[in-house]
Amino acid sequence: MTSMEKVNAFRDARNWRQFHNEKDLALSITLEASELLEIFQWKTAEEGRQDIDAIKDELADVLIYAYMMADNLDLDIDEIIERKLIKNNEKYPVEKSKDNKATYDDL
Amino acid sequence: MTSMEKVNAFRDARNWRQFHNEKDLALSITLEASELLEIFQWKTAEEGRQDIDAIKDELADVLIYAYMMADNLDLDIDEIIERKLIKNNEKYPVEKSKDNKATYDDL
Amino acid sequence: MTSMEKVNAFRDARNWRQFHNEKDLALSITLEASELLEIFQWKTAEEGRQDIDAIKDELADVLIYAYMMADNLDLDIDEIIERKLIKNNEKYPVEKSKDNKATYDDL
Amino acid sequence: MTSMEKVNAFRDARNWRQFHNEKDLALSITLEASELLEIFQWKTAEEGRQDIDAIKDELADVLIYAYMMADNLDLDIDEIIERKLIKNNEKYPVEKSKDNKATYDDL
Repeated sequence: MTSMEKVNAFRDARNWRQFHNEKDLALSITLEASELLEIFQWKTAEEGRQDIDAIKDELADVLIYAYMMADNLDLDIDEIIERKLIKNNEKYPVEKSKDNKATYDDL
Repeated sequence: MTSMEKVNAFRDARNWRQFHNEKDLALSITLEASELLEIFQWKTAEEGRQDIDAIKDELADVLIYAYMMADNLDLDIDEIIERKLIKNNEKYPVEKSKDNKATYDDL
Repeated sequence: MTSMEKVNAFRDARNWRQFHNEKDLALSITLEASELLEIFQWKTAEEGRQDIDAIKDELADVLIYAYMMADNLDLDIDEIIERKLIKNNEKYPVEKSKDNKATYDDL
Repeated sequence: MTSMEKVNAFRDARNWRQFHNEKDLALSITLEASELLEIFQWKTAEEGRQDIDAIKDELADVLIYAYMMADNLDLDIDEIIERKLIKNNEKYPVEKSKDNKATYDDL
């Protein structure tokens, strides 16, 4: 079973697809991303990463809602990542971008 | 090549791993989630989902940064999703949660 | 005592100015904005606004951190609002913008 | 004219109150907070604060939407800040909180 199938099975066992609309799913991804970010509030990256269990939980929540959004819209996760990397490749050619923080800041 | 490998290849071709710290990656996931959410600003879900190309781009950006965060911390995407679904299963038992918006609101 | 003075007095009684840097203050405004948004998750505006006490709390938290950011950088709240409204006035002239959702969507 | 009155005058000249519902206003506060946070992406606080014009603009946008939310719900800005500071005062007594990062992290 893929992760996508597991996420769908969790949702469908509860018949929760009826509550899912894409606006609230986008909103939910934002909320979970904030909970992930909160782990680093008033901390350095080094301090924040110590709380690895919380990071696992919140990062998983971001992914779970992202997968639910993809499923709602019949999007293939691997396909949209591939498509975006191709766009980024054109926008940030290796020769200009390598080791270049200025280009990176503009990402 | 898996999506994770493609994301890493993109990053490593530019030698950008040096700029990645988990605090700024968490921050970046939040920013991309906001850009996804912006597609639905002042719109219904139905209206927002028409802009499917923008949704593909922004959802992919959320996933790309989430994968980079996982890679930084040696986390396995499928493992943390599985782990979180098990936790949610305990928290929201099917018999109590099925068709239940009240439980869902509490997710 | 103005609200700004009250916020500063609260902070300074605890000697917390030492922990404040603008990156974490911006991050904190984002987190509080998310907590405000969470009140409306899976709800209509009409349903969400019933929870007026939670809205008061979270909206106040957004404002308190926004005031702290302004104080850190010696910005005058009324001045930056006035300055931004003048910019918006030029960008969205009344004759073009009145009753116009298209322009508004672009805000 | 107070800042609140100026924000209302800007909105009403365009007859934009009709588009305002509290869910999209909360969403908009989040989006503007993210734009403020973006100024600090991949930067230290010290580096980010150099871009003071962008900070003024984005912080003002957060405040403008926060004021619009307050106006929608007939909330008095100064009153909700005062109310929240009183709550925080009880939660973080000076004697326990002074110079205490641990308490602060818990804010």
